[in-house]
Formats: sequence, structure tokens, C-alpha cells
Amino acid sequence: MNLSEFQSEWMPRFDDYLYSELDARVPSQENLHKAMAYSLMGGGKRIRPLLVLATLSMAGGEISDGFAAAAALEYIHTYSLIHDDLPAMDDDDYRRGRLTSHKVFGESTAILAGDALLTAAFEILAASSVVSADKKVKLIGLLAKAAGPSGMIAGQMDDVEGETKALTIEELEQVHDKKTGALIRYAVTAGCLIAEADEPFSTEMEDFSRQLGLAYQIHNDLKDVVLDEAETGKTIHHDAALNKNTYPSLLGVTGAIQELNSVILQAEGCLDRAALSYGGAEGKIDIFRQLLDYVRI
Amino acid sequence: MNLSEFQSEWMPRFDDYLYSELDARVPSQENLHKAMAYSLMGGGKRIRPLLVLATLSMAGGEISDGFAAAAALEYIHTYSLIHDDLPAMDDDDYRRGRLTSHKVFGESTAILAGDALLTAAFEILAASSVVSADKKVKLIGLLAKAAGPSGMIAGQMDDVEGETKALTIEELEQVHDKKTGALIRYAVTAGCLIAEADEPFSTEMEDFSRQLGLAYQIHNDLKDVVLDEAETGKTIHHDAALNKNTYPSLLGVTGAIQELNSVILQAEGCLDRAALSYGGAEGKIDIFRQLLDYVRI
Repeated sequence: MNLSEFQSEWMPRFDDYLYSELDARVPSQENLHKAMAYSLMGGGKRIRPLLVLATLSMAGGEISDGFAAAAALEYIHTYSLIHDDLPAMDDDDYRRGRLTSHKVFGESTAILAGDALLTAAFEILAASSVVSADKKVKLIGLLAKAAGPSGMIAGQMDDVEGETKALTIEELEQVHDKKTGALIRYAVTAGCLIAEADEPFSTEMEDFSRQLGLAYQIHNDLKDVVLDEAETGKTIHHDAALNKNTYPSLLGVTGAIQELNSVILQAEGCLDRAALSYGGAEGKIDIFRQLLDYVRI
Repeated sequence: MNLSEFQSEWMPRFDDYLYSELDARVPSQENLHKAMAYSLMGGGKRIRPLLVLATLSMAGGEISDGFAAAAALEYIHTYSLIHDDLPAMDDDDYRRGRLTSHKVFGESTAILAGDALLTAAFEILAASSVVSADKKVKLIGLLAKAAGPSGMIAGQMDDVEGETKALTIEELEQVHDKKTGALIRYAVTAGCLIAEADEPFSTEMEDFSRQLGLAYQIHNDLKDVVLDEAETGKTIHHDAALNKNTYPSLLGVTGAIQELNSVILQAEGCLDRAALSYGGAEGKIDIFRQLLDYVRI
């Protein structure tokens, strides 16, 4: 099964689950529901949920067993975008070509919708009926760690502070490893944990997800410089205008492209080894190889 | 043991646990740690943790078994205050006589410190080693529900929307039941759950916590009207200036005091019945009776 077949078969079912959880968790507050739904349906590519489900499938697990973990992850990713876009943070008016939450619903509702998505993520995981209590506690602990003050939020703080000083390439990598990498790694870890994948497979796949996260960030920085506004749906050169530390600003455009290609090569190596360590997964690994196409320039 | 003896014996130990969890959850981001610590150490009375621990004790459980649930609850309460004080929300410069988080650390750090406390709450609960996985999943699910978009955050949204329209007393009660009541009820539920208290006791204690939460809110509204700024540590008549719906504004000061006294009477009734349903708890119930003294006018 290739990536687009997997997506056509599974992502509509996953989206139904994602929205049904919204109805279950927000029974009565209409405007809160609207604001949460607006951002959940904001045209994201659902890369993180896809990674959970595809990893689970590759490791021989039941794909729908990963819906709760994948939905919780997407809720947390979505909240982080809402809060990141706030006037006090990146102050963005548009995301993916649509107005940001605070531009549509006002700042107080955007703050609360973010808080609500973050909290509901843990409610969804705790309520899931298909995973054992032991696994749920592990999934919740790992998700909170990845999204919390030693993971994503530490990266966001570093990012806020980094705006006023120049970082080295290593420091920038550490910021991104926490800011976006931690949740991407969680996706793969969650898939392995639910499917009870063996150790060598999990190690290679987690290493793959680390490279994927890094590639994703370099690609994102490059997009801002080399692609035009219509294609990215964001105001262009925004990060550069804020004097942000980016891969192109630290390595130059050519250097950043070289770095991206090197990271993609390493990610492919992890996939090769993961397939070897797990007999019969060769066909399913195509999904991950094709995921890397998203981040090629 | 009376309230102040219980507090002297247990709350310093609990505070040590609360701060040690902060060090464990925020290993490296100094300013994030500072901002989270500033609000956690903000002179709060720790009513919610106290309720968890005292309920646990009254139901015959091991008090330190409740530390993780009590800390998670205090983290979530603290995050909600930071976000509530933000310029886009209530826009408060002072809380408990100290500058609010965004006045000290700036708005972006205050948003992230709130997000971090909320996320860390679930990390603390999941990591706790003294409670079984089954109980942890229940505690996490109930906490997320109480704090989330059908609980506290729904109440906050109602509150934001209520600023522009007049509420009935029933509507106001529903707002507060979600906004502040849900977390107070959770404190008692968590204590009962960890101690495996029997059904009649749990029911009476949960009903008590509902009345306590209501009394607390009426008392709070009245304080803003009848006590002076030095005593409350808040800017006075702030809610009235915002044309907020409050008990005194809907019932008059005398009516609000009558309502408060009636609610306190009901709460005392619950405590009498809880003590009856649980042999030998009579001494320990004094703690809860004395808690009601906080909300008398």
C-alpha cells in the first residue's frame, strides 16, 4: 500500500473520529466548539496522526487502536498553532491561507480554544476503550512530556528568547528538536508502543522520526525563502523580517539545501534498517519513504 | 486534628513535592521554570490540594498517596489564573497583592507558562508511582473533563460571553459551577477515588464540595464589594466596573449574604451525613467545617 492509498483508506475514518471526539468533549459551549473545530479542520496535512497509524500498521498492530493517540496528538499540535499565532507570540494573521483563530474569534476565545484542545487531548486518551490502562498511562505520560515544559514548550520559549540573539546551528537544531521534533517522535513512539513493536524496530523508527522532524523544519525555513506566498499560504519572509534564526539565515540557501538532503539520506537509512529488523514490512515502508517527498526541495 | 494542625503537618510536605515536581518537569528552560514557580508560589491558600488530602485522610487513605493528584490540580488551577489575568482576558495587573505573570515576565512567557503548567499536570499524574494504572487513568480522565471544554473552560467562555449580557441567577450559578466548581468537586472526587471510599460517603462529600464551591464564589463576589483593596489584594470594584454578572449585582448585597448563609447550611448538612455514613470520621470532619469559615462573611 502506498502513501496515497493509505491516506484515502484511513484518514477520512480518522477525521470522523477526530470530530466525533470534539462533539463528545464539548457538549454545550457553541462558540468554543466552533473555534476548536475551525482550527482542527484548518487544512492540516495530518502528518502526525498519519505517522502514528502508519507505524502501528507497519509494526503489525490494529490501525484503529491508534485513533485516540493520533487524535490527542493532533489536538495538541492544533492548540500549539493557535497559541503560536497569537499577537503576543508570532502575531500571524494567516495560516494555511486562512485567517488565524484570534482574527476570526477574538483573542480571548483563541486562548481558551487552545487551552481546551490541549486539555481535551488527555481526556480523549484516558477515555479510549481499546488500549489497556498500562499503555494509556504510558501514552499520556509520554505525550505530556513531549508537549510540555521539557519538550515543545521549552522549544517555544527558546524560540521566543532566540529572537533577540543569534544562535549557532547546533542551538537552532536543539530548539527545533524540542519545538517540533518532540511531537513527531511521539507519533512514532506511540505507534510502536500500541503495537508492542520490538526494540530494534522502535529504535530505528524513532531515529527516522527525529530526522524527519529535522528535515521538515529545514524544508519549512527554506519554503519561506524560496517559495512564493500563494504556495505557502503564509505571509512571506515573515521569519526573516523578525530576524529569526533559520537554517537559510545560518547556512545560506545552498547550505540549507545540502543539509536537508543529508538529513533525508539518514532518514532513508533508518527506514532500510527498520524494514530489515521487521520481516515482511518492506511493502509498508513505502508510506514512510513517500512521506519524505513532502520535505524534498 | 483541626484544620490548622492538618495544614501545619501536611502542607509544607506537599509544597516540597509540588516544587520538586517542577524541577523534574522543567529541567533546563530557566525562564520558563521561573515563571511557573512565580505563579505556583504566589501565596495561594492551596484549598484544592488540601481538599484532596483531607478527603483522603477522612476516608482512611494514605495522605501522601494523594500528592500527585493534588499537585496536578494545583498546577491546573495556577495555569487558569495566569491565562485569566492576560490582557485579552480579565486584564489584571495584580493578583493576591503581587504583579500578575504577564506584568513580570511578558505576555508570551505568561501564555507559555500557563500552557506548561497545564501540560505538566498530566505528566505528574501519569508519573506517580503510588497509584495503580487503573486509578491513574480515571484520575487523568476526570481531571481533564473537569478542567476542559465541558468544565472549567466552558465556564470561562460563558463568563467572557456573559460580560455583554445580563444573566439570571440560575445561569450565573451554572457558569460558576463549571468555571470554579468543577475543579473543587474534582478535589473531593480524587480523594474518594484514591482511598476507595464507599458510595454514600463519596456522594455526600461531592455534594459538600459543590456547595463549598458555590459559597466560595458568592464570598468572592461579596469581597469585591464589601472589603477593601488592601484585604483582597485586587483592584476593587473591578468586576462591577466591567459590568460583570455577580451575586451582589443580581441579588443585592443583603440577598447575596442570605444566599451564602443558606449554601453554608447545606454544606454543613452534607458533612453531618458524610460523618454518619463513615464511622469514626467525626474528628476528621472538623477540618471541613473549618474550611467553611473561609467563606463566611
